[in-house]
Amino acid sequence: MPRYKVTLEYDGRSFAGWQRQAEVMTVQQAIEEAILRLDSSLTFVVAAGRTDAGVHATGQVIHFDLEKDFLPDKLQDALNFHIRPHAVSVVDACIVPETFHARFGAVKRSYLYRLMCRRAPAPLLKGYVWRRPYDLDVEAMHRASRYLIGQHDFTTFRATLCQAKSPVRCIDEINFERIDQEIHMTVHARSFLPSHIRSFMGTLERVGAGRWQVEQVKTALEACDRKACGPVAPPWGLYLTNVEYE
Amino acid sequence: MPRYKVTLEYDGRSFAGWQRQAEVMTVQQAIEEAILRLDSSLTFVVAAGRTDAGVHATGQVIHFDLEKDFLPDKLQDALNFHIRPHAVSVVDACIVPETFHARFGAVKRSYLYRLMCRRAPAPLLKGYVWRRPYDLDVEAMHRASRYLIGQHDFTTFRATLCQAKSPVRCIDEINFERIDQEIHMTVHARSFLPSHIRSFMGTLERVGAGRWQVEQVKTALEACDRKACGPVAPPWGLYLTNVEYE
Repeated sequence: MPRYKVTLEYDGRSFAGWQRQAEVMTVQQAIEEAILRLDSSLTFVVAAGRTDAGVHATGQVIHFDLEKDFLPDKLQDALNFHIRPHAVSVVDACIVPETFHARFGAVKRSYLYRLMCRRAPAPLLKGYVWRRPYDLDVEAMHRASRYLIGQHDFTTFRATLCQAKSPVRCIDEINFERIDQEIHMTVHARSFLPSHIRSFMGTLERVGAGRWQVEQVKTALEACDRKACGPVAPPWGLYLTNVEYE
Repeated sequence: MPRYKVTLEYDGRSFAGWQRQAEVMTVQQAIEEAILRLDSSLTFVVAAGRTDAGVHATGQVIHFDLEKDFLPDKLQDALNFHIRPHAVSVVDACIVPETFHARFGAVKRSYLYRLMCRRAPAPLLKGYVWRRPYDLDVEAMHRASRYLIGQHDFTTFRATLCQAKSPVRCIDEINFERIDQEIHMTVHARSFLPSHIRSFMGTLERVGAGRWQVEQVKTALEACDRKACGPVAPPWGLYLTNVEYE
């Protein structure tokens, strides 16, 4: 039974998140149904990141086992044929050793958060950026984000309903880049907690807007209290862009 | 009666083009209805470019006269409030002399056409690029486009139903740029014929794909015959990006 590693791109607006749920379409259901059209031996797929409703992906990685041997290119084309009209695309496919695990084998996950600073609405980017109708102090956001790098107890920045055993994670990098009217924040870590990046962004946005002092982010982190977090940024600015393995 | 010049951005997917029509929503109707909510003296608006259904804009320019004096910033905000939920945004507003004319005063119009070369579908750019499932020879497209620059009879490259008095236009510039998986063609001219740029692009795409020789574009142009044109590229890759005035 060969194991396949497949990279997905999807428009989060079309799905109630990654994980299967009753009565709403999810990315997992869309891709599993497409695979089942090719090979009924599929039991389930495993994803690197269980993205929330509205969150996009350009580099989500999944793995699954099938009885049949497919050439990777043929598998990619066949899946893209069967997954229509869902807003998901297979952008890469390959065969991996059976020890490969999309979730537990990942050593680095990368996310992009797209902010747009513009007073006027942006019809061509609706659902793809979080628009703020004022400018933001990116330098202050960058300075505040330095407190979040490294290994910390991120209780302040995880969803209230988070069931992860430990709130401790290690954030490797947080970078900011200004591209015309947009501000792009990229975050890299081995793993994240639920709502982790959206909690970072919502809080850092308050710093950029001048409503929070840079040092307040340190205080919030050290409080280890969800109530110390700023607002949670909306899902539609967030993209899972890359997952790396050993 | 002050005359206002307003710059619009819109998502062409949401409209049956610029110009008012019975029973379908157009950009003209959406903006006129929003203006009428502010000032019932509006008679009509005039646009620099009457974009087709599906064509986007980031820099469409319109003008109109109102009885009331509005501060431009207030006018912009009020229009953006009233135009919701249509996928149109007022990105700039100013007061201009009554001699200003959005259509007849324009001395340079700029369009962008976005091609994407990728085998896999692009769910995050659906409706925003024309995807070709193979690579294109941009150098050949650029060479072929040289024949189209300057003043010519563009009968070959205008819509069959075009009612313009003359098929002669002067194309100032055609540029190509590769940006990751996309190819961007920008075209500048004082004015264009209906389907002009989409006819250019559909023909140049055939050159890029190796199906047409570079010199065939010269032959097609000189034929002055619509039947000599290549396929017409779809509207959803096209953006009206800028209009300049004296």
